Amino acid sequence: MADPRFFKVGGPFTLARLAEISGSLIGEGADPDAFFNSVAPLDEAGPEDVSFLDNKRYAEAFAKSRAGACVVEAEWASKAPNGMALLMSENPYLAFARVAQAFYPDERPEPGIATTAVIDPTARLGEDCWVDAGAVIGGNVEMGKRCRIGANAVIGDAVVLGDDCVVGSSASLSHCIVGCRVVIYPGARVGQDGFGFATDASGHTKVPQLGRVIIHDDVEIGANTTIDRGAGPDTVIGAGCMIDNLVQIGHNVQLGKGCVIVAQVGISGSTRIGDNVMIGGQGGISGHVDIGKGAQIAAKSGVRSNIPAGTQYGGIPAVPIRDWHRQVVTLAGLSKRKGK
Amino acid sequence: MADPRFFKVGGPFTLARLAEISGSLIGEGADPDAFFNSVAPLDEAGPEDVSFLDNKRYAEAFAKSRAGACVVEAEWASKAPNGMALLMSENPYLAFARVAQAFYPDERPEPGIATTAVIDPTARLGEDCWVDAGAVIGGNVEMGKRCRIGANAVIGDAVVLGDDCVVGSSASLSHCIVGCRVVIYPGARVGQDGFGFATDASGHTKVPQLGRVIIHDDVEIGANTTIDRGAGPDTVIGAGCMIDNLVQIGHNVQLGKGCVIVAQVGISGSTRIGDNVMIGGQGGISGHVDIGKGAQIAAKSGVRSNIPAGTQYGGIPAVPIRDWHRQVVTLAGLSKRKGK
Amino acid sequence: MADPRFFKVGGPFTLARLAEISGSLIGEGADPDAFFNSVAPLDEAGPEDVSFLDNKRYAEAFAKSRAGACVVEAEWASKAPNGMALLMSENPYLAFARVAQAFYPDERPEPGIATTAVIDPTARLGEDCWVDAGAVIGGNVEMGKRCRIGANAVIGDAVVLGDDCVVGSSASLSHCIVGCRVVIYPGARVGQDGFGFATDASGHTKVPQLGRVIIHDDVEIGANTTIDRGAGPDTVIGAGCMIDNLVQIGHNVQLGKGCVIVAQVGISGSTRIGDNVMIGGQGGISGHVDIGKGAQIAAKSGVRSNIPAGTQYGGIPAVPIRDWHRQVVTLAGLSKRKGK
Repeated sequence: MADPRFFKVGGPFTLARLAEISGSLIGEGADPDAFFNSVAPLDEAGPEDVSFLDNKRYAEAFAKSRAGACVVEAEWASKAPNGMALLMSENPYLAFARVAQAFYPDERPEPGIATTAVIDPTARLGEDCWVDAGAVIGGNVEMGKRCRIGANAVIGDAVVLGDDCVVGSSASLSHCIVGCRVVIYPGARVGQDGFGFATDASGHTKVPQLGRVIIHDDVEIGANTTIDRGAGPDTVIGAGCMIDNLVQIGHNVQLGKGCVIVAQVGISGSTRIGDNVMIGGQGGISGHVDIGKGAQIAAKSGVRSNIPAGTQYGGIPAVPIRDWHRQVVTLAGLSKRKGK
Repeated sequence: MADPRFFKVGGPFTLARLAEISGSLIGEGADPDAFFNSVAPLDEAGPEDVSFLDNKRYAEAFAKSRAGACVVEAEWASKAPNGMALLMSENPYLAFARVAQAFYPDERPEPGIATTAVIDPTARLGEDCWVDAGAVIGGNVEMGKRCRIGANAVIGDAVVLGDDCVVGSSASLSHCIVGCRVVIYPGARVGQDGFGFATDASGHTKVPQLGRVIIHDDVEIGANTTIDRGAGPDTVIGAGCMIDNLVQIGHNVQLGKGCVIVAQVGISGSTRIGDNVMIGGQGGISGHVDIGKGAQIAAKSGVRSNIPAGTQYGGIPAVPIRDWHRQVVTLAGLSKRKGK
Repeated sequence: MADPRFFKVGGPFTLARLAEISGSLIGEGADPDAFFNSVAPLDEAGPEDVSFLDNKRYAEAFAKSRAGACVVEAEWASKAPNGMALLMSENPYLAFARVAQAFYPDERPEPGIATTAVIDPTARLGEDCWVDAGAVIGGNVEMGKRCRIGANAVIGDAVVLGDDCVVGSSASLSHCIVGCRVVIYPGARVGQDGFGFATDASGHTKVPQLGRVIIHDDVEIGANTTIDRGAGPDTVIGAGCMIDNLVQIGHNVQLGKGCVIVAQVGISGSTRIGDNVMIGGQGGISGHVDIGKGAQIAAKSGVRSNIPAGTQYGGIPAVPIRDWHRQVVTLAGLSKRKGK
């Protein structure tokens, strides 16, 4: 059970309803009319909780779990403890996500504007927005319906937000056009000047950064992540991208749809990233390169040149993942031999 | 002497008192009744200052220093310049810390609540708290005694803080239970949603993040560091951990006691880290792994699998530190030969 | 044309005036009296726009561009599309910077103090400063003329800012002395305690951090970057340094003039960096080392020891760049052979 100080639980739901919500099949012998009250991890769940198994590392916790019900792939059914009701799914993590969303729907504060929020009179806010204390909303901002702006967040002049956006505490946005259902986490910085300057013997001369940041629908931008606006072209984040914390995205970068960018990744200026690319944590991508659709880049890799669609790369500099693994094994072998 | 605009100096103290405070022995020939006024680095200190030597890189600065007194290990006594009083300690850096704390005790502002702070009427603050301008404290927050909340910091609903906590400017906390004497630096983000979603052909579905962040006593969390709350289990930071700036700690991570996590480290979700583990700057740890007690991980390493207690690892992927050093030497040797 | 919601365009300018502003030569056949209205990237520019070519990756875009004028090196003149006016320069990016600055001069809000800004009565602000909503300015702050302090920024007690400084939204400064024309981006953290503590069996003891951050003129500090104050000596950022987003600079670090520090770099405590050093993205530098003037360090490198002036280094651990390239080639070769 999630801590009730922080989370308000819905339900209860019957097993049958949870199967329906999650698109799962009920395992043999389970009572479809049994009620469940919450979700919990395998090792904390009790008889009234629904849990899930999605990673074989946790097989032992599954076998020992006291969870009343569990979302699993069918192949695990035989390993379930006695009396555990099963919800069988080909994608148990997704099925569990839907179960958890049913118990804990997104909490929305009552619409309203805090008295200490500062909203420029030329800003236009849609219906049912919520603006928390100390938030600052600039001139000519356009905000859709049901947006939620956290405490001390700053929305710069002329920024556009679609419907149902969430901006976290102390985040700041400028020079950007944001779609619907975008979630920007606390402390994220979107739209500031890119790192553009020309250098000669007298020093560095700033190049005006005249583009914007365009964020399409259903994007999440993690805490303290920074996304610079374009220098002339725009910086573009495609629909459905999930961007983790402390990521740096340089000016003019284009991300396709549905990309997954793990924490502390850095993407240098003018690089183009295709749809559904995944970049592991602390990966770095040079400027002006193309990463093809669906490519996957291992954590901590350093990418200096184009990567074809659908491939997997790793290492510094990044090479096809098998080559990288072979390099790792080769070097380990050679150094051992020499060490003798 | 520290800049008096920023630091208020206490003292003066006699050498005898400083020896007592720091648990040091007074070197031969020094006057225990001599007074000292401040602390300073070796190359800036004058006759009224106390300095320290803790790193042999600075042996030359020590030999030339005009410091009136210096905290050192006994073996350095013979290299001291004429007339320098010595405070001899087996742990000179610790002894110096105590001397410096005596001259410059932690400055506490007068308790009080700034008129522009926004405190929900249901929040409960202990005695003698200080809340600076623009700070926002949510509903049902419980705060211990003598806490100091910086300007524009945001404490979310129902957060619990123990006694003597410090929250820096513009930091934000939510969904967390914090112990006593915890210091959270400016811009740190604690308690936001972890990076959890399930993916299928239609895109990414958010998995509700239903855990908390539990921070035990005497922890420091650096500037702009991000600590996500648990997905179901809690994210846990053990007592006495020192976490530097721009660190990322994913959901469900557990840190033991006294860990030292240097700047820009990333720890992926569900990883468990034992007591007194040290991770060098920019290190990365994969998700779901175990790092044993007292392990030390070199800067910039990439850890993909479990690491035994008490060992030292380095490299990408991380291997025992000697193996890594051997790999470095082997590759350098082979590439030189081939280069000829 | 930059989005007029965000950018106010100046001009128009004749080609002759733009040549003068940018120190360029007008290409053969172009009309010096033709007017231009804005700047734009090669692939978006129309007949009234000025563009630039600075990277041969974009040669094709240049050849196809509809830009009315383009800043280029003379050697590209023959590849220009028919009718494109050329502004020829040895440093086309710098020349373009000046053209773009002419069209889009730095926008300054009308001076004034927002009613919700909180300014300590002992703070002294120069003429024509602008302080946005929710900014907090502490006791004894000294601020020069024409400074601009963004919404919800926090300037700690006794901080000194020279003339024409810009502090972005939600940034926080403490314990620092800042020169003129310094730009601090949103969310940057300057002047908090460094990561200094002494350890023994009982745990970690904080060493008071008694230095400052000294920032010389014409420095830029990127979004969410963190710069700790000195432990005893100062942390120093030399004039004209360009520091990107999410960079970590530890206590006592000294940067010379004109350094370029790309995103997510980390520089550990007490390291000294000479003038005009460049460090690529995600590079890491150990503590207590010296990096000589003009050295260049490749992205993602890990530097553990001193680097001579004027050299290029790369790799983990960093070696002279040619050695690193040779290592990369050697390992690729050996692992292929073994893979067969």
